[in-house]
Amino acid sequence: MTDQPGRALAAFASQLRFDSIPPHVVERAVNLYVDWLGSALGGKGARPVETLARFAHAARGAPQAPGPCDVIIDRSRTSAYFAAMMNGAASHFIEQDDVHNGSVLHPATVVFPVTLALAQALGSSGREFIAASVAGYEVGIRVGEFMGRSHYKIFHTTGTVGTIAAAAAAGRLLNLTPAQMLDAFGSAGTQASGLWEFLRDAADSKQLHTAMAAANGLMAAQLAADGFRGARRILEGAQGMAAGMSSDADPAKLVDRLGQRWATVETSFKYHAACRHTHPAADALLAVIGTYRLNPGDIEDVTAHVHQGAIDVLGSVSVPRTVHQAKFSMGTVLGLVACRGHAGVNEFEHDYVASDVAAFRERVTMALDEQVDRAYPARWIGKVSVTTRDGRTLHGRVDEPKGDPGNTLSREEIAAKFVRLAAFSGAASEKEAQRLLDAAWGIADAARVGGLFGEEAGV
Amino acid sequence: MTDQPGRALAAFASQLRFDSIPPHVVERAVNLYVDWLGSALGGKGARPVETLARFAHAARGAPQAPGPCDVIIDRSRTSAYFAAMMNGAASHFIEQDDVHNGSVLHPATVVFPVTLALAQALGSSGREFIAASVAGYEVGIRVGEFMGRSHYKIFHTTGTVGTIAAAAAAGRLLNLTPAQMLDAFGSAGTQASGLWEFLRDAADSKQLHTAMAAANGLMAAQLAADGFRGARRILEGAQGMAAGMSSDADPAKLVDRLGQRWATVETSFKYHAACRHTHPAADALLAVIGTYRLNPGDIEDVTAHVHQGAIDVLGSVSVPRTVHQAKFSMGTVLGLVACRGHAGVNEFEHDYVASDVAAFRERVTMALDEQVDRAYPARWIGKVSVTTRDGRTLHGRVDEPKGDPGNTLSREEIAAKFVRLAAFSGAASEKEAQRLLDAAWGIADAARVGGLFGEEAGV
Repeated sequence: MTDQPGRALAAFASQLRFDSIPPHVVERAVNLYVDWLGSALGGKGARPVETLARFAHAARGAPQAPGPCDVIIDRSRTSAYFAAMMNGAASHFIEQDDVHNGSVLHPATVVFPVTLALAQALGSSGREFIAASVAGYEVGIRVGEFMGRSHYKIFHTTGTVGTIAAAAAAGRLLNLTPAQMLDAFGSAGTQASGLWEFLRDAADSKQLHTAMAAANGLMAAQLAADGFRGARRILEGAQGMAAGMSSDADPAKLVDRLGQRWATVETSFKYHAACRHTHPAADALLAVIGTYRLNPGDIEDVTAHVHQGAIDVLGSVSVPRTVHQAKFSMGTVLGLVACRGHAGVNEFEHDYVASDVAAFRERVTMALDEQVDRAYPARWIGKVSVTTRDGRTLHGRVDEPKGDPGNTLSREEIAAKFVRLAAFSGAASEKEAQRLLDAAWGIADAARVGGLFGEEAGV
Repeated sequence: MTDQPGRALAAFASQLRFDSIPPHVVERAVNLYVDWLGSALGGKGARPVETLARFAHAARGAPQAPGPCDVIIDRSRTSAYFAAMMNGAASHFIEQDDVHNGSVLHPATVVFPVTLALAQALGSSGREFIAASVAGYEVGIRVGEFMGRSHYKIFHTTGTVGTIAAAAAAGRLLNLTPAQMLDAFGSAGTQASGLWEFLRDAADSKQLHTAMAAANGLMAAQLAADGFRGARRILEGAQGMAAGMSSDADPAKLVDRLGQRWATVETSFKYHAACRHTHPAADALLAVIGTYRLNPGDIEDVTAHVHQGAIDVLGSVSVPRTVHQAKFSMGTVLGLVACRGHAGVNEFEHDYVASDVAAFRERVTMALDEQVDRAYPARWIGKVSVTTRDGRTLHGRVDEPKGDPGNTLSREEIAAKFVRLAAFSGAASEKEAQRLLDAAWGIADAARVGGLFGEEAGV
């Protein structure tokens, strides 16, 4: 291992070429992009997202001439900076965007807002877009793993580390040299922020975190291209990110099998529309219900056997006060799964406080499980114990929740989810969604990443 | 003390009225504003400042219609967001802006960029401008004291805490309710960032920190005014700023004598154009040189007896590679003081690597002093020991460095510094500087905070 792992990681990101990315990684990157675009459409109309969009439009200073970059929720066109900000805000709201288990990073919502906006601004090719997006994933995931579990206890990794991922992606599209890429990391890392405190109030900060991780990462790369210098060891230095915000950082993670291990394909798609920490238990409960053909009324109580990270993030929510907060309530998620068969956007929207779901919620507890905790974050094992009204204790276990790399979504499932999210928010008609999908599946072959909407795109 | 000190602090900021601020505090706030405006003018032409300005203009997306707010370095007019960003970048570069000892916060560079821009955008009165600026100072200083010395070891408090100060100032001008102000604190605190790592590379992050503290704080307040919710306990909560970034936070500091103690008047003006941590020793050395009528050649070596914070911040710079880095080199500052009699902007620009100054630099060491360290950060005591070539050991001590509240600058000294900084950067002719000064001294009485330049202002 190098004694300057941050420098090696920056060099990797700046030199990553489309031709060196294996075809299965490219295919997965396209799938992740399509999945992300659906999540961004799904954010339309959400109050925090729309508020951030109003801020962005006003900060630019209306009325202004249109820019080259799409704002997905309102189909306006603005500068790359504000498009990254608004699309970053939109794509995390519905809690359906992807997640990488080992780093507990949501890469799509901080990477694709930047690569889409910047590729549109620069007229980049689809191949350049894919290479830059993969650079963002590979960097962000390794930095998330480097920062460790102690970081995630207090900090929202997608906000903090996401800034570096966004800078890497933007830097690749801007053809930064290795030294400039390191500058970009420096300017991104010194802006890294995002605290979990907002969760206990059901505050709106999660959208702010992704919006600003995308915008600040883009800014860091653009500044670096113009000669603005950043700290050379912002990740591992004595007054850097790990020194300030982690107690178990491992620099070896930064350079873990660069160019051989493709962390991009380790990324999980979300099936349930909730915090990923609830998914393993939800799948395990579905397995028990399916195996033993239980009705919700048959169930006396459920214990979800979880890793500590789930307790840290979900533990602050007892009775959810908003749809968004309900997505961080283990009881609500298991209640929707048990009572409605699915915890999707529509179930949350209509039923998160329905009386049967709320009653079920009160019968759910979480317990720390040593085995599950040891495996985490590399593996997110789902285990539940169900006590039935007739006195049985039934156990369920799922080793790879639906959407995980070994249990991934098919293109048909991703497309169905896309259409569902677009319809849910009203961001695109079914016909428009189909056209958006057709274009998105072909992004890697595009000579130029153009507009998503309007005559140019046929939507 | 309340059990929700953050809430009490937000309520104070949202309810602070001009009429409740004592006249001597108003007068000092005007002096601090004038001093800040000089520093902002002084940043013109500095590479990191100009690079950030190019980014900001491009992020808005040129060509655009002018906005209502002045960019001080180029006299363009833009939106409040970008004016706050660019003026925040400009006013910290020259290392002549103010500092509050107890909090180790530079309030002006994060508060005035926001209050000036927003007051221009809203057409606020001078009284509203002053009340908002004082709110920013009072809040920022208390939050800096709350975060403690452990925070400052890794984090650049002006970047992190500055975001809250900026939000408080903007929130006051926007007439936020106490609940909205708490929302603004939440959105600001979850964006708090800024790491010292950049210092060891002479990187450009310091300007990025102040630019984004101002812009993000303004954003947080504007979002709050539009209903965007923030964490209620972002400062003191279990997953808040102190939990993540401090090990010695003291919540009582947040509400220390609100409305009775005016922290604004505790703020020090900078006399030397260097990091404040060098000033006590520089003044003590000047005292020794003056008392014993020494020439630089009489001096064998100098030991600066300092607090630990000075070693943390200055310790990483041995041989400075840039003018900016030289301002963090104790040896260079003492060398300029000894060889040139003054460590001002012109001395740094021309002589930071002059052979006599560099040779003197090599004869300077820092040593931790228990007494000085115990008094810090409430008092910044300057102590030096000088060994002369003829074998004497001379001691010098200054209890209040020049510019400290007990040894403050007169209006004449502030005006002279202003004209010197404007001339240094070429941001304003002497005649223009005089007109800017005339208007700035009268800001509290302005019916409306208008433009600084052009016909409107007579510059």
